Amino acid sequence: MVYILLGSKSDQEYGKTAVDIFEQFGVKASLWVASAHRAPRWLHEVVAKGEKAGVKVFICGAGGAAHLPGVVASLTCRPVLGVGIAAKYLGGIDSMLSLVQMPSGVPVGFCGLGETGMKNAAYLALQILALEDKKLASKLHEYKKKMEEENRKANG
Amino acid sequence: MVYILLGSKSDQEYGKTAVDIFEQFGVKASLWVASAHRAPRWLHEVVAKGEKAGVKVFICGAGGAAHLPGVVASLTCRPVLGVGIAAKYLGGIDSMLSLVQMPSGVPVGFCGLGETGMKNAAYLALQILALEDKKLASKLHEYKKKMEEENRKANG
Amino acid sequence: MVYILLGSKSDQEYGKTAVDIFEQFGVKASLWVASAHRAPRWLHEVVAKGEKAGVKVFICGAGGAAHLPGVVASLTCRPVLGVGIAAKYLGGIDSMLSLVQMPSGVPVGFCGLGETGMKNAAYLALQILALEDKKLASKLHEYKKKMEEENRKANG
Amino acid sequence: MVYILLGSKSDQEYGKTAVDIFEQFGVKASLWVASAHRAPRWLHEVVAKGEKAGVKVFICGAGGAAHLPGVVASLTCRPVLGVGIAAKYLGGIDSMLSLVQMPSGVPVGFCGLGETGMKNAAYLALQILALEDKKLASKLHEYKKKMEEENRKANG
Amino acid sequence: MVYILLGSKSDQEYGKTAVDIFEQFGVKASLWVASAHRAPRWLHEVVAKGEKAGVKVFICGAGGAAHLPGVVASLTCRPVLGVGIAAKYLGGIDSMLSLVQMPSGVPVGFCGLGETGMKNAAYLALQILALEDKKLASKLHEYKKKMEEENRKANG
Amino acid sequence: MVYILLGSKSDQEYGKTAVDIFEQFGVKASLWVASAHRAPRWLHEVVAKGEKAGVKVFICGAGGAAHLPGVVASLTCRPVLGVGIAAKYLGGIDSMLSLVQMPSGVPVGFCGLGETGMKNAAYLALQILALEDKKLASKLHEYKKKMEEENRKANG
Amino acid sequence: MVYILLGSKSDQEYGKTAVDIFEQFGVKASLWVASAHRAPRWLHEVVAKGEKAGVKVFICGAGGAAHLPGVVASLTCRPVLGVGIAAKYLGGIDSMLSLVQMPSGVPVGFCGLGETGMKNAAYLALQILALEDKKLASKLHEYKKKMEEENRKANG
Amino acid sequence: MVYILLGSKSDQEYGKTAVDIFEQFGVKASLWVASAHRAPRWLHEVVAKGEKAGVKVFICGAGGAAHLPGVVASLTCRPVLGVGIAAKYLGGIDSMLSLVQMPSGVPVGFCGLGETGMKNAAYLALQILALEDKKLASKLHEYKKKMEEENRKANG
Repeated sequence: MVYILLGSKSDQEYGKTAVDIFEQFGVKASLWVASAHRAPRWLHEVVAKGEKAGVKVFICGAGGAAHLPGVVASLTCRPVLGVGIAAKYLGGIDSMLSLVQMPSGVPVGFCGLGETGMKNAAYLALQILALEDKKLASKLHEYKKKMEEENRKANG
Repeated sequence: MVYILLGSKSDQEYGKTAVDIFEQFGVKASLWVASAHRAPRWLHEVVAKGEKAGVKVFICGAGGAAHLPGVVASLTCRPVLGVGIAAKYLGGIDSMLSLVQMPSGVPVGFCGLGETGMKNAAYLALQILALEDKKLASKLHEYKKKMEEENRKANG
Repeated sequence: MVYILLGSKSDQEYGKTAVDIFEQFGVKASLWVASAHRAPRWLHEVVAKGEKAGVKVFICGAGGAAHLPGVVASLTCRPVLGVGIAAKYLGGIDSMLSLVQMPSGVPVGFCGLGETGMKNAAYLALQILALEDKKLASKLHEYKKKMEEENRKANG
Repeated sequence: MVYILLGSKSDQEYGKTAVDIFEQFGVKASLWVASAHRAPRWLHEVVAKGEKAGVKVFICGAGGAAHLPGVVASLTCRPVLGVGIAAKYLGGIDSMLSLVQMPSGVPVGFCGLGETGMKNAAYLALQILALEDKKLASKLHEYKKKMEEENRKANG
Repeated sequence: MVYILLGSKSDQEYGKTAVDIFEQFGVKASLWVASAHRAPRWLHEVVAKGEKAGVKVFICGAGGAAHLPGVVASLTCRPVLGVGIAAKYLGGIDSMLSLVQMPSGVPVGFCGLGETGMKNAAYLALQILALEDKKLASKLHEYKKKMEEENRKANG
Repeated sequence: MVYILLGSKSDQEYGKTAVDIFEQFGVKASLWVASAHRAPRWLHEVVAKGEKAGVKVFICGAGGAAHLPGVVASLTCRPVLGVGIAAKYLGGIDSMLSLVQMPSGVPVGFCGLGETGMKNAAYLALQILALEDKKLASKLHEYKKKMEEENRKANG
Repeated sequence: MVYILLGSKSDQEYGKTAVDIFEQFGVKASLWVASAHRAPRWLHEVVAKGEKAGVKVFICGAGGAAHLPGVVASLTCRPVLGVGIAAKYLGGIDSMLSLVQMPSGVPVGFCGLGETGMKNAAYLALQILALEDKKLASKLHEYKKKMEEENRKANG
Repeated sequence: MVYILLGSKSDQEYGKTAVDIFEQFGVKASLWVASAHRAPRWLHEVVAKGEKAGVKVFICGAGGAAHLPGVVASLTCRPVLGVGIAAKYLGGIDSMLSLVQMPSGVPVGFCGLGETGMKNAAYLALQILALEDKKLASKLHEYKKKMEEENRKANG
């Protein structure tokens, strides 16, 4: 079980990108809107819900002053993966720099920006879940093999 | 009454810089260590304490993934002023970019980096308090006048 | 009473964003065009007018070599909030770096870039005014509560 | 079992930081020097060794043109965590930007720069391992609680 | 003989820019898709093929976490020229910083970003090949002369 | 006659670098401390004094939120040359970005950072004065020739 | 007499912006295409022509690796003003950083980016020429006054 | 034969780093001081000398507004490799950005910053020379093998 958290409804498209990948690999994922800044108490509730539900990985996407992943990491001992989302200004570098220097003991694994970042957060989550799920592990191996084959075949 | 919050004991020197200024101007200020990442529940308590104590301005200094001012701003309607502190890498630009693009409706007034940033957060807090305190307002005017005079006199 | 200053007519849309927020909260705000570079004496007059009119907060938006907030801060002891506006080049980082390291004793509270920055400058100004205006304070509390509720409800 | 890979002997101090943390938590970790640029075949061997040995997480620290984490991620489906190390010039931003935009399907979880980055890679690895190790999970909870308590006590 | 390597089919337009220049100057060039991250073993094969085919220069274009040129440089003693390609975010600065600080002994000659970077990688490769090919050298001299003449003539 | 303006006494060393160059070339130069932020009215007086004294070039050095050159340019039609001074944080890039995008019609000629920037502001001022002073022009030619000779001789 | 130099025909629009301003103020200006990289000998000729023609200011606009202003400054003792032009990538910051740290003794006055930079180079050139041309000086004063008036009137 | 050019005597240490490498590999290299800005005509002479002497690669190291490699590339059709040198401010990023976007048709192969950059320029030059020198090629292969072995052995 994976929880995907986004700060606002307008960022949901990014979350859906991740949800699609989890579906493809047969992993349960649940998408939540919970802003660290606008709804701090609600965010605490969502993290608590997640822990009760047995969430194994939290994926958190946020833009601008991107505090969502860090706040979730402050509340749980489960792995937290962060994704930066470009705001209207500064091209995403601000969300990235909001996330990459977490204090010692409260890690966030930063997985990149935007859609690709969200996809890679999903893949990293799958890799984590696959450590104890051989079926999933072999699906990931197939996926990796297929990537290599497609790359070879691109040479006509 | 002003609350100055810092994420860790090692940043306290910055807080003391602010405390000294408040003392000079006869304003009560209280210094707290409360990390957004290491002690999120404690931080909520400190903000609640502050609101009960009638705090008028929260000053929050933080480095790296600087989420402290944003988290405080998520919890209170009182003015929050943020100060960035340079971590070992990236020279403070990360703490700055963690703070300057807060989402609409949850403002933080960013006052600069390090010691000078902390001093200016204190002065901006004094200016806010002086809006309803004529004595303090006239002290600030004197201080401003003195700055100008010293600058003139530097020309020997 | 709040004064909103912009360097040129072409930036007025940003000022109107702020004016709308003040109207919503029933606070008087006045919008001025006064360039630090093109009309320095006029700017001094506007600040003097503002002080006479009992302005409590100056909000200053400027782009490029963004000196307007700093010049206003040099002239008044009232709180000055700065907003950066992206010029054609450099994406706003220049206006931000023009504002975030004011010298000690002459603070500017930087509230962000563009429309969101302007909105947050307005909200921070409202928070400052609410310190001595219980009605306004309770409106801000309601607004905050509503933000949290909307965020919750976005989970359908 | 965790493998910690560094590009050169001179970076080993960072690896030892991680090793110490794994020891504290009773987790087996093994430190390797294997440069993506100087010893690409050796690096392939180390990754293969790791997979055989049942490694669950690869932690890779690299500076400058930091390709080590990405190359390891290209070779394995196990989670790869990256840490940037500041070279003589550019202050670490280059190693960070070498790691944060991996192509879709080949994730690296970036954990920060230098010593703190390495510590957080270790903590994130522990959180991953703890998903199927209740003893480790409860140690991490204690550690988290202790962090919070120390932060509170700093106000002593 | 020159090999031009790109990470994915979607970047091929950049490779064709180079191929066109090599054709103009009568130099054999071969375009390959081989991703350092998605198809590491295939990439090793391509480099080995190239060495057998007597490739004198490898041109490698890559975006984001741009590891392709570095991985090729780790595998061959032939000159490797790198070109950065702007990904959706960060405007190419990330691909550039992924390439410009290679470790001592494993050089990559960085030739710029995008189409112009690719063209200049082709021209630098031609200059290298021309060292032992007088005909090519004189073609390059003519090309240089023509550039100067066109620049003069632009003054009508 | 040249006026060199600095924001604070602590920056005077930079001004003296320029004064020395003017002395070498027999040009009158006068050094002033006048802060745009701490002493705005005094700065207006200094510029007015300068205009009365027949100043031909204003050189303004400033750090952090470097508004001094821009404010002087707002007050005079004489050429204004700006020099950035690195503050404790951000390494001078902030002072540079505070100066390089002045609004149309209010130019500042940015001459660089620190001591070298100040020297080059002095040399550019000399080149401006030399347009109507043949003696000075020939001294500058000699100086240029000497630079070239010393560079040649360094190969001795 | 002013010479405006641009590296390629495609940048001429920027030069025309400056030419228009010089025409408005009745100052002779001449526009040249002369690339430091594509036509170095032609560029030397243009600078020599300019010196013979009595040029008082060289304005040089260049993008990317912007070496044109520096090369001109290496060849003449007349004031050289530089303008950066944004290339396809990096948004102009590269042209700016190519120009702002000239070595001591070879100054370039950097006037900004793109059209506004070119306009301000023209205005700074006019200010330089006005030092010995009272008519021009009074036109510049009028222009400045008009700017201030328009700014005031914008409050209409 | 390789020419190594540096702008000033104070940068010679970087040139010696390269000279040492060429000596180790039995390749003739010659070190020159020739500033693009202080001694443009001398620089033209040095390049002409180099072409006559049969130079196969020019290595050019420069700091700040780093125009040396670009000016050399404008004068010759031989490969030019550039190295950035950090000036007192901006940490070398300025010299890098002065070099990485050369215009189409005038390539510079950028090899990095400071000592490591200079070493890699030397190694890339050796790789270029080795294309027609089997002995040198086999020395480079041995060197590469040794690097790999040392890396392996670092694992004790």
